[in-house]
Amino acid sequence: MTEHVDETTFRDRAERVQRALGDADADLAVLFPSSNLHYVAGFDEEPAERHLFLFVPRDGDPVFVVPALYETQVASESWVEDVRGYADSDDQIAVVEDVLDDVLWGVDGKPRVLVDDSMWATFTQDLREVVPGASWELASEALESVRVRKDDAELAALREAGRVADAVSEWVRARGEDVVGMTEAELAGEIERELRERGASGLAFPVIVGSGPNGAMPHHTHGDRVVERGDPVVLDFGGFVDDYPGDQTRTMVFAGDPPEEFERVHDVVREAQQAGVDAVEPGVEAQAVDAAAREVIADAGYGDAFVHRTGHGVGLDVHEPPYVVDGNDRTLEPGMVCSIEPGVYLDGEFGVRIEDLVVVTEDGCERLNHSDRGWRAE
Amino acid sequence: MTEHVDETTFRDRAERVQRALGDADADLAVLFPSSNLHYVAGFDEEPAERHLFLFVPRDGDPVFVVPALYETQVASESWVEDVRGYADSDDQIAVVEDVLDDVLWGVDGKPRVLVDDSMWATFTQDLREVVPGASWELASEALESVRVRKDDAELAALREAGRVADAVSEWVRARGEDVVGMTEAELAGEIERELRERGASGLAFPVIVGSGPNGAMPHHTHGDRVVERGDPVVLDFGGFVDDYPGDQTRTMVFAGDPPEEFERVHDVVREAQQAGVDAVEPGVEAQAVDAAAREVIADAGYGDAFVHRTGHGVGLDVHEPPYVVDGNDRTLEPGMVCSIEPGVYLDGEFGVRIEDLVVVTEDGCERLNHSDRGWRAE
Repeated sequence: MTEHVDETTFRDRAERVQRALGDADADLAVLFPSSNLHYVAGFDEEPAERHLFLFVPRDGDPVFVVPALYETQVASESWVEDVRGYADSDDQIAVVEDVLDDVLWGVDGKPRVLVDDSMWATFTQDLREVVPGASWELASEALESVRVRKDDAELAALREAGRVADAVSEWVRARGEDVVGMTEAELAGEIERELRERGASGLAFPVIVGSGPNGAMPHHTHGDRVVERGDPVVLDFGGFVDDYPGDQTRTMVFAGDPPEEFERVHDVVREAQQAGVDAVEPGVEAQAVDAAAREVIADAGYGDAFVHRTGHGVGLDVHEPPYVVDGNDRTLEPGMVCSIEPGVYLDGEFGVRIEDLVVVTEDGCERLNHSDRGWRAE
Repeated sequence: MTEHVDETTFRDRAERVQRALGDADADLAVLFPSSNLHYVAGFDEEPAERHLFLFVPRDGDPVFVVPALYETQVASESWVEDVRGYADSDDQIAVVEDVLDDVLWGVDGKPRVLVDDSMWATFTQDLREVVPGASWELASEALESVRVRKDDAELAALREAGRVADAVSEWVRARGEDVVGMTEAELAGEIERELRERGASGLAFPVIVGSGPNGAMPHHTHGDRVVERGDPVVLDFGGFVDDYPGDQTRTMVFAGDPPEEFERVHDVVREAQQAGVDAVEPGVEAQAVDAAAREVIADAGYGDAFVHRTGHGVGLDVHEPPYVVDGNDRTLEPGMVCSIEPGVYLDGEFGVRIEDLVVVTEDGCERLNHSDRGWRAE
């Protein structure tokens, strides 16, 4: 269970989910071990074979159903008061049926039930049998609009994760020439160690160290290539703090002279990243932010070399809405958090990507990363 | 992708699944990243947001649908010939719709479709919309009867995983008095290292080191308690070899004299374990094996202290059918593999558990573990 979020925050999240259920004309959300359940109730275990649900009705109190193994823990640590445990010898379906009778009591006509997007088929099949007359949709229909605007507890964790990533970024930069001769994997290992020593509980994703031509492959993580003098090195990493991830990218040269074209490309990407950040404010469509960053790169003649979207939302999931991508007409709202990470990838030569997380404010945005964005690490 | 299973074996598994679909009167199984997909096609990645399915029709050839990211890998490494990749800009639902048209071609009336038991709701919802007239059940209905009888490739991996666990068990025993003074966590770390050095690719589950009173808690893994002279220590561990797990338990005393009652309890558990193994043969109900082991313990007056089932099946999943438990009237068949692991837990004092994996043969069973079952490690 998550212990650094207070009960008031959880209650507030649940109330917002209940209002969103009303907006969606839905009677009930059934959550399953997932980032949705983590968000509403702090429960962050992996899904498993036994029935484990949080029922959140549009009106009234939520009900947890948990196997006996979890009952004491959930009853003592969760803000949810109605926790119903069952033993392996109990009829799990009957337990679920009782709860559904309670939480759907008073619903007229055909209930509209939202199930967690990653709920296993074995459980959705059971629910469908217990309430054969219901219509079934996905929980994201109500949860997404709530989770996309971060509350104070989430912003505090994201700021701290940003601070940790910043500190490690400055630490790597200060290594300077010492990095030459290390393999990408060795440097990635040191970055992981530093993230943990500075307070991260784990990696938000595998550390990316893309040196020289490897930096031109956006899906490369790290390998046995040795960093050489003059190599541009794409460094993309972040760690979890209080369950929220950092995610920051810098492109550095640790010693020697980079390839001829590099300095110009780095200037273009840095300008594009600034243009993306400058475009972020409430009321702007996500795709307009993508366009602002992309235009700078296209105008400089590198449009075809910017092969991915400009960014993604960040929260309990490292990739979540809002996606900063062409075609997404969702408008930005205060409290949304996303990455702004344009890049240029010159096949066989090098790559450049610069990334910060930003939070949308009332009149613009605030960066969550402040480490040096320059390329010179000497 | 799994590379140590040959194409003939995969084709044979798929044909058996197709026959099982016929027996279940089902037209199609739709698999998702899971142990079922791992079994039929060697694909063992984690589930993710993009549509990734293997469609196995009752008649005709299976079809893979994969995101572009996986297309080259799956097309080159999988035995499935019809691999259809799609780009992020493609309409994923339309791709799925085309495949369903093909694999359900010629089905008269209402198709009966089995979906993978752990398929996410977001995907089952999509499938239901594409084939609104179908009836939906779970893939285990056809897959379980196939997977429960292990083929030669599986048995070879399970035997090797047993050999690795045996070797580590003998290694721990030989440490003798040196273990006294170590914490449970330190010993667990050494056991993990030894499993890996002897060929395991990873742990099948967290290593259990239950010393003294900690051994009386069956869910205890390991902690900071220091192993003392005279402590009975429950050691339960195994590593994956070619994707199949080892799972073995011994209870050892590394130095000094154990508690007075210990030797008698160890004798009883060892006799119960032998009785369980002796009861395993084709045609016997799983619950009869549980009863055989349980009777020995109950007769000795420790019935209330044997608080779990006698065993579980083992395969690509560490816990899978057949479950050796009261109420399971499934009869054993040659090729089934399960654990036989009775235990006695004396609250606040110590625990004793002895576990081997066995494979059902034509006329009895074969143990997959052969390491010393005695308690004396000095």
